[in-house]
Amino acid sequence: MTDIVKTQYATFDHELKLQCGATLGPFTLAYETYGQLNAKKDNAVLILHALSGDAHVAGKHDENDRKPGWWDDAVGSGKAFDTDEHFVICINVIGGCRGSTGPASIDAKTEKPYGLTFPVVTVADMVEAQRMLIDELGIEQLLAVAGGSMGGMQAMQWTVSYPERVKGAICLATTARVSPQAIAFDEAARQCIYADPNWNNGDYYDGTPPNAGLAVARMIGHITYLSDASMRKKFGRRLQTKEQYGYEFATEFAVENYLKYRGSTFTQRFDANSFLYITKAIDYFDLGHGRASLDEAFKHVQSKFLVVSFSSDWLYPPSESEEIVRALLQNGLDATYVEIESNYGHDAFLLEIERLTGVTRDFLARLRRPAKGRKARKPPTAGK
Amino acid sequence: MTDIVKTQYATFDHELKLQCGATLGPFTLAYETYGQLNAKKDNAVLILHALSGDAHVAGKHDENDRKPGWWDDAVGSGKAFDTDEHFVICINVIGGCRGSTGPASIDAKTEKPYGLTFPVVTVADMVEAQRMLIDELGIEQLLAVAGGSMGGMQAMQWTVSYPERVKGAICLATTARVSPQAIAFDEAARQCIYADPNWNNGDYYDGTPPNAGLAVARMIGHITYLSDASMRKKFGRRLQTKEQYGYEFATEFAVENYLKYRGSTFTQRFDANSFLYITKAIDYFDLGHGRASLDEAFKHVQSKFLVVSFSSDWLYPPSESEEIVRALLQNGLDATYVEIESNYGHDAFLLEIERLTGVTRDFLARLRRPAKGRKARKPPTAGK
Repeated sequence: MTDIVKTQYATFDHELKLQCGATLGPFTLAYETYGQLNAKKDNAVLILHALSGDAHVAGKHDENDRKPGWWDDAVGSGKAFDTDEHFVICINVIGGCRGSTGPASIDAKTEKPYGLTFPVVTVADMVEAQRMLIDELGIEQLLAVAGGSMGGMQAMQWTVSYPERVKGAICLATTARVSPQAIAFDEAARQCIYADPNWNNGDYYDGTPPNAGLAVARMIGHITYLSDASMRKKFGRRLQTKEQYGYEFATEFAVENYLKYRGSTFTQRFDANSFLYITKAIDYFDLGHGRASLDEAFKHVQSKFLVVSFSSDWLYPPSESEEIVRALLQNGLDATYVEIESNYGHDAFLLEIERLTGVTRDFLARLRRPAKGRKARKPPTAGK
Repeated sequence: MTDIVKTQYATFDHELKLQCGATLGPFTLAYETYGQLNAKKDNAVLILHALSGDAHVAGKHDENDRKPGWWDDAVGSGKAFDTDEHFVICINVIGGCRGSTGPASIDAKTEKPYGLTFPVVTVADMVEAQRMLIDELGIEQLLAVAGGSMGGMQAMQWTVSYPERVKGAICLATTARVSPQAIAFDEAARQCIYADPNWNNGDYYDGTPPNAGLAVARMIGHITYLSDASMRKKFGRRLQTKEQYGYEFATEFAVENYLKYRGSTFTQRFDANSFLYITKAIDYFDLGHGRASLDEAFKHVQSKFLVVSFSSDWLYPPSESEEIVRALLQNGLDATYVEIESNYGHDAFLLEIERLTGVTRDFLARLRRPAKGRKARKPPTAGK
């Protein structure tokens, strides 16, 4: 039986101070919760979503929904994030377009959609907004923060921004410092939107949205989420409907058809300006920025970490997870690192559920156990 | 001293029968030659260009030219393709926009530019047109055909289409079968052009060309020509002009600036429709297509091969060169394979000149030597 969940909304009247120096407010956060917060309020797990995700991580809003939430395989009774044990929260990021305040929202000051007057937000700003909601929910310390891709960036940022409020962080398929190649793909995708005349400098909410540009932007992104190997296996050079080349510019290869479909369906649920803001937040993400090194970023961190990479992820490759783990260990932190063999590329964090479930459940169980004090972590004495 | 060369033009009144079933004609080929054809006419080397190349492979058209031809480091007196020894020819492909007949050319039947009425051409069609020019030049057998990327595809196609007319083939950074990932990037790039309203279904020659779309298309392509490692080294996360993030949607990171520059300069020398036609020819390239296997494609081939891949090339990775070599060896052909360690990605075939020069010169010298007969290739008898 699939759980029926409702999206909730919290509106904050106080202003959010952003890294860019501007403020945002009043603002709304859309969120969903699953399971029950226990009396000690120590079983809360905050799931952080990636670029195109939202608060609807699991279950259905209505029995007749065609599909459940985006990580339903991992969140629910008996699953990796077991809702019998945990109070799971998922919040749509600010800058997004799935219920939380973003560029498509009405600016109270002008009574018009923000468009490009929406301030540029960062991953740290997203976390700051989330922290306000966690305060509202009366949760002093999160048992865990967890997410893949940009979700993993938010998880790391939580441990840095609020060291005492996060017991453990699960960082999947992510990076502490977005690479120039990843920035390049994001910028190419943004350029597709800028080049669409319907974009109109972000001011399109009373007209036709720049769907052509957004669809191509998504196509580009989607290529980076798959791997060469998975594309060979899933599509190869197969033609979608014909036996022979058509010698025309129609969509012909199965891989083209798939990506075009993914691009066009994306425009039905996503706002082009949000795509710009969120990819920009990703590009800015560099925990070492303004610090001597990445090690320095984790200096005051107290959380335990589970870092998981996927062998064929070339967007945020395993070497970048290793960089995170090295920096954590340099700070004497408790870090578990797993590289999962997978052909699914970056998307593996959404697909390798069986492998993920094992490590995640173990890690969460360890976080739930009462602390044994430092003694327990020392090696046994030689004489014993 | 840089050689001064002139582009020559050959117009063919007979029609070219294309793989799509259509015919093209009359048509023109733009080409350049370097060095002298010897009396025996056995020192001709045909260089085949990649997607954005042209006939101007080396030297300058005028002393005041800012830059020489696209492979000047490899073609000239004492260089890899030594013009003291060889008669080097380079021909702009049909479908191109650098002097040979392509979609921007005037269709004699309508007296208007072809636009999308230009027939879809393939790599085999490009080679067929080149063969006509080689006939005109009175060359019975080419000492070698050589090229990188799509140039390597043409080189292989020459050995398959005209086994007796090619003594040796040099195939650099190429593939016998374009992968779904490479097709996906090409299609995303094409979609950028389609989405530009100035494209106007290919009919823009008396108006504004779709430069915005073409620039983004080129940006995407260019990312695939570099490697993650070379981007980290060349750009890292460096900002182009500032010290601190600007929190705006301007071009900020050095890598963005570079790609945007490459995209916009490309529009000054390239036609968007040609980009569509040539990428489509690339996507269609699969020597095994319509045959039982890739091995089968090389069944009647007689040429010797030098196949070179570059370790960080992820567009046409070394594994795809190995696939070519295996198929050649299956057919008992003489194939030398070199994987060159390089961080330059796919572009390495234009940049790793020192490494390339050695193997290329050796291979060409071997081709120039008179054949020793079959005996020499048999292993020595056990008794000796």
